[in-house]
Amino acid sequence: MLFINEKSIKQAVTMKEVIDGIDRAYEIYESNQFQMPLRSQVQDGNNTLVLMPSITNHAIGTKLVTIFPNNQEKTIHGLVILNNKDTGEIEGILDGSFITGFRTGAIGGSAIRHLAKKNASKIAIIGTGVQGLYQAVAACSERPIKEIYLYNRTAEKIPAFKESLKEWIGDDIELIEAKTIEQAIEPVEIIITATTSRSPVLPENKELLRGKLVIGIGSFQPDMREFPETLYQLTNHILVDTMDALDEAGDLIQPLEKNWITNDSIIPMSSYLANPHTVALDENETIVFKSVGMALFDVVVGNIIYKKALEKDIGMELHL
Amino acid sequence: MLFINEKSIKQAVTMKEVIDGIDRAYEIYESNQFQMPLRSQVQDGNNTLVLMPSITNHAIGTKLVTIFPNNQEKTIHGLVILNNKDTGEIEGILDGSFITGFRTGAIGGSAIRHLAKKNASKIAIIGTGVQGLYQAVAACSERPIKEIYLYNRTAEKIPAFKESLKEWIGDDIELIEAKTIEQAIEPVEIIITATTSRSPVLPENKELLRGKLVIGIGSFQPDMREFPETLYQLTNHILVDTMDALDEAGDLIQPLEKNWITNDSIIPMSSYLANPHTVALDENETIVFKSVGMALFDVVVGNIIYKKALEKDIGMELHL
Repeated sequence: MLFINEKSIKQAVTMKEVIDGIDRAYEIYESNQFQMPLRSQVQDGNNTLVLMPSITNHAIGTKLVTIFPNNQEKTIHGLVILNNKDTGEIEGILDGSFITGFRTGAIGGSAIRHLAKKNASKIAIIGTGVQGLYQAVAACSERPIKEIYLYNRTAEKIPAFKESLKEWIGDDIELIEAKTIEQAIEPVEIIITATTSRSPVLPENKELLRGKLVIGIGSFQPDMREFPETLYQLTNHILVDTMDALDEAGDLIQPLEKNWITNDSIIPMSSYLANPHTVALDENETIVFKSVGMALFDVVVGNIIYKKALEKDIGMELHL
Repeated sequence: MLFINEKSIKQAVTMKEVIDGIDRAYEIYESNQFQMPLRSQVQDGNNTLVLMPSITNHAIGTKLVTIFPNNQEKTIHGLVILNNKDTGEIEGILDGSFITGFRTGAIGGSAIRHLAKKNASKIAIIGTGVQGLYQAVAACSERPIKEIYLYNRTAEKIPAFKESLKEWIGDDIELIEAKTIEQAIEPVEIIITATTSRSPVLPENKELLRGKLVIGIGSFQPDMREFPETLYQLTNHILVDTMDALDEAGDLIQPLEKNWITNDSIIPMSSYLANPHTVALDENETIVFKSVGMALFDVVVGNIIYKKALEKDIGMELHL
């Protein structure tokens, strides 16, 4: 049994390999060769324990996370536990909090890999928390990014974010603190929102959104929404990482209720990747990608990390 | 975060302390100060992944186990994961397979503590698997046991069982291999069945069952049954470790369906312990105790093990 903490995960895999893992998970999702029951939740006041199992043809895994929204330091703690597919033995215990952030970065990274302009060099990160950090890291691994525009409601958090980001991407990429959200998104080809906002963080301004790839990875509950009405007028193509997003994300639920979009315009990323030519995406079109995540990503990515850690002799061997 | 494997658990707690933990869990069960959603299961052919969370006023915990019935060596693998009640941080990762066996022993041990004749000195263990082992260990910690009668469908397994049991209880207690089940149960005051039989393992013989404490910890599915019809004619008091047993155990479901017993005769152990005088159990009466287990036991016992391990500086400190 291998214990693989954050440091070991970083030694075992690159962001690009995790994005490969996300693409692999889409293949499994499209082929329907998996099991993923509804996540089970236990509520303890404001706090939540969430259990997310998933079984593929190659792996059995469970993500266990606690969400304590009032924590000052860190709201998400967790593990990804891998069982051997043939014997049931515990094979790996991985840092589930880090995997959550890292694989969510990779979900955005996969969207950029497949949907962004090839020469895109400028991105905006709206929301400079942990999630925003790995979105930026993933973007840089997929496109020749030269400038990253940063916007956060509380600007005080940006300097620390810059420091963390530099540890990943070095000093060559320019990090620009935007005073307004308009300033952040005006120059860029890719906009990534990573907030838990309950009202749209992007402006109702067609000219600032048109022709861009807009990736929403924040809002994950029906009453949260990051995208403005304008955005839905600019596109007929909203890609989602899982069809569960239709039950979970305010960025889909609310526009559907208000008839800004129809179900037809929502396309699972896995279907698009399996048959890219059936969805005629134009590089100059506005494209929206919305992620809510799913246990399948954690288990497929966790299994890749485990295999790489074994190969490279990384992690701590534990015995029950 | 403390990693506590089987060896460390054995150093951290005694069987008696785990039985105290079971009694504490009954208090919590009776007071209703806990949350325990339905266990969630994922099926993979014959194999099952089971997730069992529970939250008390003092602990958040989850047991994760795989059941692979066709495994030659070990059918159950698992972990008990404890989260800090105030921060959600992972506090402990414990051997869930060992805890399952050990705490199930303690459930039987608690039944013996509260229901068996004070001077009981002879027990029969029917089914000499892992579960039977810890039942015997627990019995010896609660009563001055001098003779243990062993019966197993495949007698070849008994010598190894004897060796394992001696490691726990030493050489002073006589271990007697019975040729027949009748021979095993005739001399004893306490009978413990720990099989997965689908048809009664105890004989339809009133004289061999009358006035004894009969503990069933095996059959845990509606189509399994260890107890014979005769047993139900001998008693009006069937104690259960959790009322979930009425949905899970063939030893209750089938007799209720056949009208051998009524719902009135089924008493949660927690209610009995809270008000022993309201249930007038006679020492000379046949008493039946049926256990199916529940996540609350794992979390309360896991938390006690964690606290003792911290105190005694046992276990391995891990960092995510």
